[in-house]
Amino acid sequence: MTLDKGCCASICQSFFEYATPKILVIRSKRVGTVNRLIQAVIIAYVIGYVCVLKRGYQDTDSVISSVTTKVKGVALTNTSDLGLRVWDVADYIIPPQEESSFFVLTNMIITANQTQSRCPEVPGPNSNCSSDRDCTPGLKDVRGNGVQTGNCVNYSDSVKTCEVLAWCPLEVNVDPPVPPMLADAENFTVLIKNNIRYPKFNFNKRNILPHINKTYLTHCIFNATTDPDCPIFSLKYIVSAAQEDFQTMAVMGGVMGIQIRWDCDLDMPASWCKPRYTFRRLDNKDPENNVAPGYNFRFAKFYRTADDVEVRTLIKGFGIRFDVMVFGKAGKFSIVPMLLNIGAGLALLGLVTVVCDWVVLTFMKKRHQYKEEKFSYVDDYGLLSETAE
Amino acid sequence: MTLDKGCCASICQSFFEYATPKILVIRSKRVGTVNRLIQAVIIAYVIGYVCVLKRGYQDTDSVISSVTTKVKGVALTNTSDLGLRVWDVADYIIPPQEESSFFVLTNMIITANQTQSRCPEVPGPNSNCSSDRDCTPGLKDVRGNGVQTGNCVNYSDSVKTCEVLAWCPLEVNVDPPVPPMLADAENFTVLIKNNIRYPKFNFNKRNILPHINKTYLTHCIFNATTDPDCPIFSLKYIVSAAQEDFQTMAVMGGVMGIQIRWDCDLDMPASWCKPRYTFRRLDNKDPENNVAPGYNFRFAKFYRTADDVEVRTLIKGFGIRFDVMVFGKAGKFSIVPMLLNIGAGLALLGLVTVVCDWVVLTFMKKRHQYKEEKFSYVDDYGLLSETAE
Amino acid sequence: MTLDKGCCASICQSFFEYATPKILVIRSKRVGTVNRLIQAVIIAYVIGYVCVLKRGYQDTDSVISSVTTKVKGVALTNTSDLGLRVWDVADYIIPPQEESSFFVLTNMIITANQTQSRCPEVPGPNSNCSSDRDCTPGLKDVRGNGVQTGNCVNYSDSVKTCEVLAWCPLEVNVDPPVPPMLADAENFTVLIKNNIRYPKFNFNKRNILPHINKTYLTHCIFNATTDPDCPIFSLKYIVSAAQEDFQTMAVMGGVMGIQIRWDCDLDMPASWCKPRYTFRRLDNKDPENNVAPGYNFRFAKFYRTADDVEVRTLIKGFGIRFDVMVFGKAGKFSIVPMLLNIGAGLALLGLVTVVCDWVVLTFMKKRHQYKEEKFSYVDDYGLLSETAE
Repeated sequence: MTLDKGCCASICQSFFEYATPKILVIRSKRVGTVNRLIQAVIIAYVIGYVCVLKRGYQDTDSVISSVTTKVKGVALTNTSDLGLRVWDVADYIIPPQEESSFFVLTNMIITANQTQSRCPEVPGPNSNCSSDRDCTPGLKDVRGNGVQTGNCVNYSDSVKTCEVLAWCPLEVNVDPPVPPMLADAENFTVLIKNNIRYPKFNFNKRNILPHINKTYLTHCIFNATTDPDCPIFSLKYIVSAAQEDFQTMAVMGGVMGIQIRWDCDLDMPASWCKPRYTFRRLDNKDPENNVAPGYNFRFAKFYRTADDVEVRTLIKGFGIRFDVMVFGKAGKFSIVPMLLNIGAGLALLGLVTVVCDWVVLTFMKKRHQYKEEKFSYVDDYGLLSETAE
Repeated sequence: MTLDKGCCASICQSFFEYATPKILVIRSKRVGTVNRLIQAVIIAYVIGYVCVLKRGYQDTDSVISSVTTKVKGVALTNTSDLGLRVWDVADYIIPPQEESSFFVLTNMIITANQTQSRCPEVPGPNSNCSSDRDCTPGLKDVRGNGVQTGNCVNYSDSVKTCEVLAWCPLEVNVDPPVPPMLADAENFTVLIKNNIRYPKFNFNKRNILPHINKTYLTHCIFNATTDPDCPIFSLKYIVSAAQEDFQTMAVMGGVMGIQIRWDCDLDMPASWCKPRYTFRRLDNKDPENNVAPGYNFRFAKFYRTADDVEVRTLIKGFGIRFDVMVFGKAGKFSIVPMLLNIGAGLALLGLVTVVCDWVVLTFMKKRHQYKEEKFSYVDDYGLLSETAE
Repeated sequence: MTLDKGCCASICQSFFEYATPKILVIRSKRVGTVNRLIQAVIIAYVIGYVCVLKRGYQDTDSVISSVTTKVKGVALTNTSDLGLRVWDVADYIIPPQEESSFFVLTNMIITANQTQSRCPEVPGPNSNCSSDRDCTPGLKDVRGNGVQTGNCVNYSDSVKTCEVLAWCPLEVNVDPPVPPMLADAENFTVLIKNNIRYPKFNFNKRNILPHINKTYLTHCIFNATTDPDCPIFSLKYIVSAAQEDFQTMAVMGGVMGIQIRWDCDLDMPASWCKPRYTFRRLDNKDPENNVAPGYNFRFAKFYRTADDVEVRTLIKGFGIRFDVMVFGKAGKFSIVPMLLNIGAGLALLGLVTVVCDWVVLTFMKKRHQYKEEKFSYVDDYGLLSETAE
């Protein structure tokens, strides 16, 4: 019991102890200056760079986004096949709605009145033939248009190709028309509605900012300098802003990125949190290492004739796909990252002692005096002999 | 050589040296209490807040997700144009499949039997005219429906508008029907299958949890309190949970977010990692700063008449787009963030000395005694005169 | 004024002071070894693990990505309903384009010539009836195909079901055909073009790497070992790489993930930043807790007969949806995370003193001597009596 008491008393006593390191103060202009300089650099770094520039005192969150788009405009084409024809939004937006992307048809190769039947394959290394022996019944060439029947037939007066079972007549392997059929597409406009959320901070915002009224929205067009808050974009402007030419891009199609960056400092008023729009071409223009340049896909409209035969119009549609890419980071004051950064900054202050000690003990005239004052020595020579201590 | 030996010996000696700061222990209840209090606060913060609450010892990863959806239900409409008509999933889901979103048609303005022809433009500031001189042949107004021919024709008995080449008859500029045509859509159900992956931890999970069996899945409907694990949702429930009224929203359409949050502590059993569903309206209801409120898009069904004329039925479809948004963070014990946080915490303990020293040397009665004990001084007055030291 | 001067002088003096802790050096092999060992471990950890392995000196960014896909191939089916029929890309890709995903139709249940009319519901617990009283006019069963008319009619010779207004004839509730109709789909190929961006570092890259030329791209097929850079994939290879059998999966459909991982160390040459492709099945194969296994959806082709009746062909399409999932992290040298990690590492070095002091003062023979040398004591006994100090 007495032991317990004594032990308890000793713990109590040590509980009220305060251990502070003994300090040697060197009064020297040189060392003092080095000391203060390094301290100043570290403090400036912690405050200036980590806190102000990088906002190290903030917790961050990534954006969650929802996008809807609505394209407007009409285009006129005049071809020998179709005659004068007007194209509206239900014709040139395919599919009619997507999640955060929209495709605008700008050019086409139309193959009308295809039916399931037999016809000569388009000439090519795998389809040219001189007799039936060159054709394999049932062969489905990955790059072909149908299933070979095994017959070698006349494609034209001079060329014979293997007959295929396919949607005939086949699409002719030609380059897309220049200028593009829907050259008018450059005048189309698109309204982009973007709603974002930073879930960690329960913060929502829309790209149609509160100060924008209905009247402004009915006639405005986005312009980075004059109308940076208008959510209605001219397609030509988007493409130009990415240093591309709309008419050139429209021929073979392509992919454009509409980048919406929401970088928000949520310690500031919410109205400072605004979207920034930038535009970038996403597909490869470089003709060198490029297969299937541009952007196109095939789709068909299916009809049925009076005698119940299925007929389709195959369209190889070239166009520009606009991907709306929303990204950004929001920061808000939080105690953990702040203390993390301050703690690391304080630890860096420990570096000051290391550097100054090195200066003092290496370069100063009175270094031996300092050494004597700073260090005391205890030797443990006994240890060398007593191995089983 | 002797120098080398001496140098080596000196390095060896210093290798076996251990430098520990000399400590002044102040036995004082006051300072001791301040000291222990601050230490306790910092340790409590490091352990309690950083480790337990924020799980600072964990490495984190963001979720990768895949979503499929399947809507079920039939709706009945009875209009003068279409008569009694049943709508099933192939009619009201457009496009038939999307990646992580689905659109349910709830209301429509149908313009049947459009053909490429000429007709008077819908009245408006840019299309009203009194004579042919007000109309510009070839003008394609972005907000118009076609290409002006240059003629000014009767739209009605009292109004004359410019004639356009377009898909005629034009869609009439009316408000969508109230109540919405597919009011029955509120009873539709949707099965959402969500598969997530945390690539850094090679962790996969599905929202159909292991304990759920097939029988339960065939009849359950999600309810936040009674059936929180059922992946089948009633559309009406989703909209209600976001404090919206389905029938009101169905008239003009809108965008709903189905948020699936996967916050997983992977140091715990995998079965604790469960999805949490929340629902939020994403588009702007506020009529003030809103252009094109709700959500709608135009699409068409193309037909061909017996005499090969292309005819289309244009549908301005209003409806609710449901975006399935999956987010979340997984944490798992990792040595780097743990040591980072502990290191920063230890560095903060250095603050204790700063604060206590300030208390001791400023407020204590015996502060001069402490100062004398704690600090030793070396002066370097020679430095001031010797500039070329 | 003299006070100010004195105060100023005192501040000036303390400005040029350098405070360094007084150190007790213990020359002992044992303690020295413990000391150096712990130091070595901590330094090795900071350098080896944090810097080299985890690249703690780098700032990181997440990837922004854009994907386009193009599928090629033809398939042949021979059914009693359709006869010999060739399927090409416009037939089996639905919808024709999506943002970062594509769906390949592999199996179907086709219900042709549906019109809006009345027919007996498919037998089931909610639709079987014995008399008209069992049927409720206007009832829209969520799992049914139409709206009940209230009549109980013959479904077959033995079964009576409620009559419904629906698209009739109804789809028969059968299992999808085995083998799948478009079994040829395994030979289809898909070209995936992926463009990524790390916005923080303004770094863009494409998955068609600069050293790849056009000739290679026209004939290459991806293979993890022989052609790891080819962006053209065989569908069969993708499914096999995920340890699945294509023909089995094609029957009921499913969801495949094509994961493209871009882990880039941007301190290294940009050419080292390469995509890694992995493949994983995303939907649940497990038949236990699975409702609606596989992946299918219904879509329809709409026709109009000569007498203007709308007719549709309903297709319940089973198939494989391929989700292209792009993820990755890029790191680049940055001063903030480096100093954060170094600071935390230095703070950990403070642990050395704690451990070594404990060793010295507990286990060493001469521990009392060390204690005396290391610690000095000041007592503040007055404090106990003077409460109002």
